[in-house]
Amino acid sequence: MASTNGLRDRRRRQTRRDIHAAALWLAREHGFDKITVDMISAEAGVSPRTFFNYFPNKEAAVLPGPTELPEGLAAQFITRGAAHPREVLADLTQLLVRDLADNAPQRQEMHAVFALTRSHPALLAAMLARFDSFQRSIAEAVAQRLEQRPDGEVPTLLAALALTAMRTGLERWACEESQSEADDSPVPYVERSAELLRTLLTP
Amino acid sequence: MASTNGLRDRRRRQTRRDIHAAALWLAREHGFDKITVDMISAEAGVSPRTFFNYFPNKEAAVLPGPTELPEGLAAQFITRGAAHPREVLADLTQLLVRDLADNAPQRQEMHAVFALTRSHPALLAAMLARFDSFQRSIAEAVAQRLEQRPDGEVPTLLAALALTAMRTGLERWACEESQSEADDSPVPYVERSAELLRTLLTP
Repeated sequence: MASTNGLRDRRRRQTRRDIHAAALWLAREHGFDKITVDMISAEAGVSPRTFFNYFPNKEAAVLPGPTELPEGLAAQFITRGAAHPREVLADLTQLLVRDLADNAPQRQEMHAVFALTRSHPALLAAMLARFDSFQRSIAEAVAQRLEQRPDGEVPTLLAALALTAMRTGLERWACEESQSEADDSPVPYVERSAELLRTLLTP
Repeated sequence: MASTNGLRDRRRRQTRRDIHAAALWLAREHGFDKITVDMISAEAGVSPRTFFNYFPNKEAAVLPGPTELPEGLAAQFITRGAAHPREVLADLTQLLVRDLADNAPQRQEMHAVFALTRSHPALLAAMLARFDSFQRSIAEAVAQRLEQRPDGEVPTLLAALALTAMRTGLERWACEESQSEADDSPVPYVERSAELLRTLLTP
């Protein structure tokens, strides 16, 4: 049963990746304004109906990555229990970094996405909404761990800090020229932003 | 000359406020999906052409507040020159608080706006885009003050911290029941979020 679910999950992730890759390729080839859900579906070899099972619109399809913390990682994080906010933030960074390592985006791809968001306000807004939704799922995990309300100040602020580190690191990584294949991971960039955020406010 | 410009500026701000008030009132009265630019313009007593001089769409008209740091405040902040990031962040918070005190939003209004963003993804996305644009103008001011690149890590992170404090404080203020007319300002809420952010990261 578990392996059937596992297979289905992998297939779903693959279809999602295929549609995303088709959308991004078409956007770079024809310009984001010119592409349609029908074009993306045809390119990915799925029906428009299937497209809408995965994404609400073309903006969402062009953007990479998930909008929620993976359940397994969130559960591990929550069971660690009460800790100093600095420690909670360090755990959050580790968790985001592990998620990034498991679902490594490609630098070229992220570069293209950030470039598209700069010229298409609707795409920027969709990306910000995705970060916001991701941030909310992190705030919920922090709230559960600290036994506080999810809209409480501490969970909200810690989630915002973690997301800020992730977004800043990802943007720097995506905008820098790739030095070599070997170091082509956003992880050191996100870790560096998180470390800088910690030390910035240390008296 | 200066006073003519001052008068024109005041008139522009008043027209902007009138359109915004009309948009928000209509959205609460008829539902955000039902309102149009024509309806908002008629309610505010301006032509649709004038509407588009102030806002690109109805989403933008419903949202309060500016998208840029006022030039005068930014210039004062920049001339203070190099300082420890903690001090720069404290100055930024003071500056945002002064701007909030000068252009005080109404609690009922902010409450309505946040409620609308929760049920209308397009409005949430527009609000996030506005925060992002505001954050970018803050990062630019920090970069000028510290003589760094505006897309550098320190300006980006400090601007994100300041905006996080402002957004968190504003949301808490808007969502809490008003206790009395006298304390009806978001300023203590934003100051508290900024203080909490600082102490959260202090070992």
